[in-house]
Amino acid sequence: MSNKIGEKFQITSFGSSHGYAVGAVVDGCPANLELSAEDIQNELDKRKPGTSSVTTPRKESDEVQILSGIFEGKTDGTPIAGVVFNKNQHSKDYSMFKSTPRPSHGDFGWMSKYGNYDYNGGGRGSGRVTIGHVIGGAIAKKLLKTKGIEIISHVTQIGSIKAEKLSLDEIRENIEKNPIRCGDLEAAKEMEELILAKKSQGDSVGGIVETIATNIPAGLGEPVFERLDGDLARILMNIGAVKGVEIGMGFGVVDKAASQINDEYYIEDNTIKTKTNNSGGIVGGMSNGMPIISRIAIKPTPSISKCQNTIDIESMENKKIEIKGRHDPCICPRVTVVAESSTAIVLADHMIRSGFIHPSNLDG
Amino acid sequence: MSNKIGEKFQITSFGSSHGYAVGAVVDGCPANLELSAEDIQNELDKRKPGTSSVTTPRKESDEVQILSGIFEGKTDGTPIAGVVFNKNQHSKDYSMFKSTPRPSHGDFGWMSKYGNYDYNGGGRGSGRVTIGHVIGGAIAKKLLKTKGIEIISHVTQIGSIKAEKLSLDEIRENIEKNPIRCGDLEAAKEMEELILAKKSQGDSVGGIVETIATNIPAGLGEPVFERLDGDLARILMNIGAVKGVEIGMGFGVVDKAASQINDEYYIEDNTIKTKTNNSGGIVGGMSNGMPIISRIAIKPTPSISKCQNTIDIESMENKKIEIKGRHDPCICPRVTVVAESSTAIVLADHMIRSGFIHPSNLDG
Amino acid sequence: MSNKIGEKFQITSFGSSHGYAVGAVVDGCPANLELSAEDIQNELDKRKPGTSSVTTPRKESDEVQILSGIFEGKTDGTPIAGVVFNKNQHSKDYSMFKSTPRPSHGDFGWMSKYGNYDYNGGGRGSGRVTIGHVIGGAIAKKLLKTKGIEIISHVTQIGSIKAEKLSLDEIRENIEKNPIRCGDLEAAKEMEELILAKKSQGDSVGGIVETIATNIPAGLGEPVFERLDGDLARILMNIGAVKGVEIGMGFGVVDKAASQINDEYYIEDNTIKTKTNNSGGIVGGMSNGMPIISRIAIKPTPSISKCQNTIDIESMENKKIEIKGRHDPCICPRVTVVAESSTAIVLADHMIRSGFIHPSNLDG
Amino acid sequence: MSNKIGEKFQITSFGSSHGYAVGAVVDGCPANLELSAEDIQNELDKRKPGTSSVTTPRKESDEVQILSGIFEGKTDGTPIAGVVFNKNQHSKDYSMFKSTPRPSHGDFGWMSKYGNYDYNGGGRGSGRVTIGHVIGGAIAKKLLKTKGIEIISHVTQIGSIKAEKLSLDEIRENIEKNPIRCGDLEAAKEMEELILAKKSQGDSVGGIVETIATNIPAGLGEPVFERLDGDLARILMNIGAVKGVEIGMGFGVVDKAASQINDEYYIEDNTIKTKTNNSGGIVGGMSNGMPIISRIAIKPTPSISKCQNTIDIESMENKKIEIKGRHDPCICPRVTVVAESSTAIVLADHMIRSGFIHPSNLDG
Repeated sequence: MSNKIGEKFQITSFGSSHGYAVGAVVDGCPANLELSAEDIQNELDKRKPGTSSVTTPRKESDEVQILSGIFEGKTDGTPIAGVVFNKNQHSKDYSMFKSTPRPSHGDFGWMSKYGNYDYNGGGRGSGRVTIGHVIGGAIAKKLLKTKGIEIISHVTQIGSIKAEKLSLDEIRENIEKNPIRCGDLEAAKEMEELILAKKSQGDSVGGIVETIATNIPAGLGEPVFERLDGDLARILMNIGAVKGVEIGMGFGVVDKAASQINDEYYIEDNTIKTKTNNSGGIVGGMSNGMPIISRIAIKPTPSISKCQNTIDIESMENKKIEIKGRHDPCICPRVTVVAESSTAIVLADHMIRSGFIHPSNLDG
Repeated sequence: MSNKIGEKFQITSFGSSHGYAVGAVVDGCPANLELSAEDIQNELDKRKPGTSSVTTPRKESDEVQILSGIFEGKTDGTPIAGVVFNKNQHSKDYSMFKSTPRPSHGDFGWMSKYGNYDYNGGGRGSGRVTIGHVIGGAIAKKLLKTKGIEIISHVTQIGSIKAEKLSLDEIRENIEKNPIRCGDLEAAKEMEELILAKKSQGDSVGGIVETIATNIPAGLGEPVFERLDGDLARILMNIGAVKGVEIGMGFGVVDKAASQINDEYYIEDNTIKTKTNNSGGIVGGMSNGMPIISRIAIKPTPSISKCQNTIDIESMENKKIEIKGRHDPCICPRVTVVAESSTAIVLADHMIRSGFIHPSNLDG
Repeated sequence: MSNKIGEKFQITSFGSSHGYAVGAVVDGCPANLELSAEDIQNELDKRKPGTSSVTTPRKESDEVQILSGIFEGKTDGTPIAGVVFNKNQHSKDYSMFKSTPRPSHGDFGWMSKYGNYDYNGGGRGSGRVTIGHVIGGAIAKKLLKTKGIEIISHVTQIGSIKAEKLSLDEIRENIEKNPIRCGDLEAAKEMEELILAKKSQGDSVGGIVETIATNIPAGLGEPVFERLDGDLARILMNIGAVKGVEIGMGFGVVDKAASQINDEYYIEDNTIKTKTNNSGGIVGGMSNGMPIISRIAIKPTPSISKCQNTIDIESMENKKIEIKGRHDPCICPRVTVVAESSTAIVLADHMIRSGFIHPSNLDG
Repeated sequence: MSNKIGEKFQITSFGSSHGYAVGAVVDGCPANLELSAEDIQNELDKRKPGTSSVTTPRKESDEVQILSGIFEGKTDGTPIAGVVFNKNQHSKDYSMFKSTPRPSHGDFGWMSKYGNYDYNGGGRGSGRVTIGHVIGGAIAKKLLKTKGIEIISHVTQIGSIKAEKLSLDEIRENIEKNPIRCGDLEAAKEMEELILAKKSQGDSVGGIVETIATNIPAGLGEPVFERLDGDLARILMNIGAVKGVEIGMGFGVVDKAASQINDEYYIEDNTIKTKTNNSGGIVGGMSNGMPIISRIAIKPTPSISKCQNTIDIESMENKKIEIKGRHDPCICPRVTVVAESSTAIVLADHMIRSGFIHPSNLDG
């Protein structure tokens, strides 16, 4: 298995849901970035379970410890190891899942590929491993901030309830005011009701998370195989439960004519801009200076308490399964910070690779 | 710039639209695969321009030469260099594009990032560089065939015209019968008409290409960062003009409940299958043995003869542009073979990485 | 900075001499290898300081904790994070080294490259970071043992005192009987005396460590750029204080004729062998089935208490320095386990890459 | 097989001795470097066979063609494909080597690993593949020259004949005056005589090639696993026939005390220098601003016409072999340009990776 992502700004993730710890080693962050555990903790708190009625009631404090990479309050160029020790790991008997894969859940893959599957709480297949993503993303975001780059993810749809298009300022303000992390406060209420309804039925629901990154210089990404859109698509599709990725208009381009959606250039304040941003800030694999916009389709959490058909891979017999326990009836609100983190990791990596951030010393 | 993709089965692509040649070095193909130039030529012929009314009339024979890697009719484990010499490269004066980026075209990125942009015919930003993808894909497909894996791409939508869902056999048979490479022959006719209408207006139109890969073993891909869906999303998003990627139901999952779309397991003929395949053959980042299904959203070709606003990056003045010349009014039919090739490259790579194909000797 | 090595069996190392912890994440070990903390601890104990008169008296228990990657006593295919918390880190004031590079020590590089140098005990430039190598090496050795491969490193020279050539069995037995880890017990005594003499003079001395790996299958490594000898040379040269690497006869080939040193093939017990092993088990970049033999030249530890000339990089003035403290007067005995570990990491990586060990499941 | 080296400045090599062509794709060279085929040809001419009495009389014009990557006389950031078509490939019957490995030659590895070995002239195991190295090295050297970096390789020993230590200027001047590429003209004569004597005996002899790189900035390389000395050791050990690599004093450090060889710092003209350069310009894995000096031990060419014992791997019987043909009785003179090229590739790669050369645009 390989658990790293990034070329110059690189995350190596480790740990499982019910083992001793989860965490990540973040390598390639240049020296002289001010960084504290609190910077990372703030981001981790956004994905922490048990904080609202729409997330799993599992309680985890998810306190990060930084084991290396910081000297006198600043990064020193060496790898930053961040660890969260699991506290709630022996709460339940998971042995019923040992050889019984849950429908649309990764554990069938784990069983058939590795043959020694830590089935407790999903093991390393658990959403809990995204703590590693968020540790990496928090550092990436802090690094990008030194260049004015900001990244925000918000929920734009749950089930068939869609949020209104809003300004970035409104989104930024409103997502902190509701447990859905949706910018449209009215839609957020309906979304919350829908999620609670699904929860009471022992079911779950999907949605869409949009990510906007601003202040991006033109020229990130490379035109053929290391394209910025390709790298974003990969890291976003790598988030569990994601089944689709769009950049800019995404699937909306399909039934349009070029004359309707081409982004025309113009000059304003001696800067080259485009009148529209249907491209979502990326053309020909490279950023064009406009905001980078992506959207991901998130499926309903597959772990539901409704009765489902499955099999036992040892006895090779058909079986029924009801997955009791503390599951998220909709994972979208907690995915927002993972999408932000993933986007930040790719952008930080490309900022270094393209020469916009010095590879070893931020003051260099 | 980096122009390679793949870890064990690796493509390094080179060349530009109007230079001497385009091609690719394919490294990591194990020895003892029967391979001839004809195997590659057959695939290249599918993307060749000038073959129908709906593609560009530019004529290129696109004949491939294999420079290395084959001994006595079989691969010998060494890198396979395939080259297509350009024949039609001095046909036109492109100097008007030197400092005038075409809307929604990659050339603004090229100009700002590299500062020495071969603007002739789009240079290395041209769709012509996908010849390298197809060389790699042709070899990957031949390699996968030794394990029974087959890959097929077809057009499922042009503009708002959608093809009916058909069996794999029908698709395979029908796509050879129409220039759209659509499995639904009636829809194909309407699509052709739509494309020709757009062409006559000096405009272009987008569409959707679906790719189906069958006979995939369970356990390809890794569960966290080197996921099969992530790697597919990247290589597909890396195809020029693609703005969205879906696996399985894709964005269709958003408004569904888990109980509606979870793929339940059952046993048939001592084999584990799922009743539905909403996951598109990939769960938890790993293949589950079901067909792998992806769809890509392809934007209308941005090069249109309609008048558009743009700028001159040297004089920093506003400008108008009309892009005359031989452009594809819809690139979807020609993208099919590139999507097949890209999918084949990722699958071949993961088949070797996961131990299903021996890394150095197919007979080993 | 990048702190990983290996392609399929991959080590990501972190931590510094006087930070909270040092450790490594070992990724790519297939599932179902029996592994315990004790397996790693046994190897770490070989490099632990303070165990004899010829090493630094600094006391560290160097107890490893495994945070992830083991399920029910066996690896589960997920990354194995091993950590050693530093206990002895606040023992001394190192501020005199803040801007005063020690001759032939890495700290000038750290100062000029990163600009925020943790100078305490050498920071991440300390030999203490080889704990990460040994964590990785211990797992690699255990993995290789399942295929019968054994690796042993021993001291063959200290200063001008050379050990006699001995059988592998004698070496294996004798190195445990003396603090030098030399197979020749008489030479070991002289070496010990020489080291103690240098120590009493406030000076240090160099030496040679040889590594022998047995039961290697033919065909590890690739013939051009990912050669086994190249990869070994890199990882061995990467060990601090190493200034030369030899494979087989090494520099001994220079004044020989081919007819004197070519390794002639013969057949014994239906197995192909070579009469001599001047090639050290690697020809044309690939293993040939004979024992792999390397030697490294280790310089005298540069930290000595004798007065030396240096500079202050802040005031840009000349300066004198006497490096008091607990330094190894000869690092060779403690390098043996690092050389073993490094060799094991490269061999484990190539065993997986070449298809001799299954990439995800040892039982697969 | 993988045939690439380098991370940012990357070479992918292809081709075999008796196939259609040998060559390389050089990727990652920033745009706006003036470059012509002549720049590469000049370097290739240094390794061309048939130019003197001490090399093989095989005649090859080795004319390079550049297929891509140059626009209006300058690199444009896209991959540079360089090809040399083989002209002399059907000269001889090599079938006797099909299943009979030559002692100390790579072909046993090829046979056992890949199972479809192009044995003609050594196939891809031939020294002829270093044409790819030289294509890459020529571009790297041109790129480094823009930063004042110069690299020179010369022969310092053949058999037991050693060259005197000379100034860089003398070496540079003298190596062009003798076929050995040795700076000491008197030693060169003796070396030539020795080689001719060995040749007349149907035998061959080894030697040492030293490489000196000047004007290196401090801070190239990284301190743990991506060290500059490690990367140099790898690429140099990857050259066929190399069995040992030294940096600076190399094996000379073994019997020295630190007080004898530590490189003391001093300040001259406001620049930090070391009084001696026993470290060879690299300390702690990073360059320190002094010239980088390496030496490689080159074994006598294993292909000799003297009778040797070997086996037939098909019949599994013992056999005798006399390798007639046009072999280099000493490969050292022709290795010099390969060592220069290899060193240049590593330095160019690290110059980009460390931020000293812009990754995409030399004028950027």
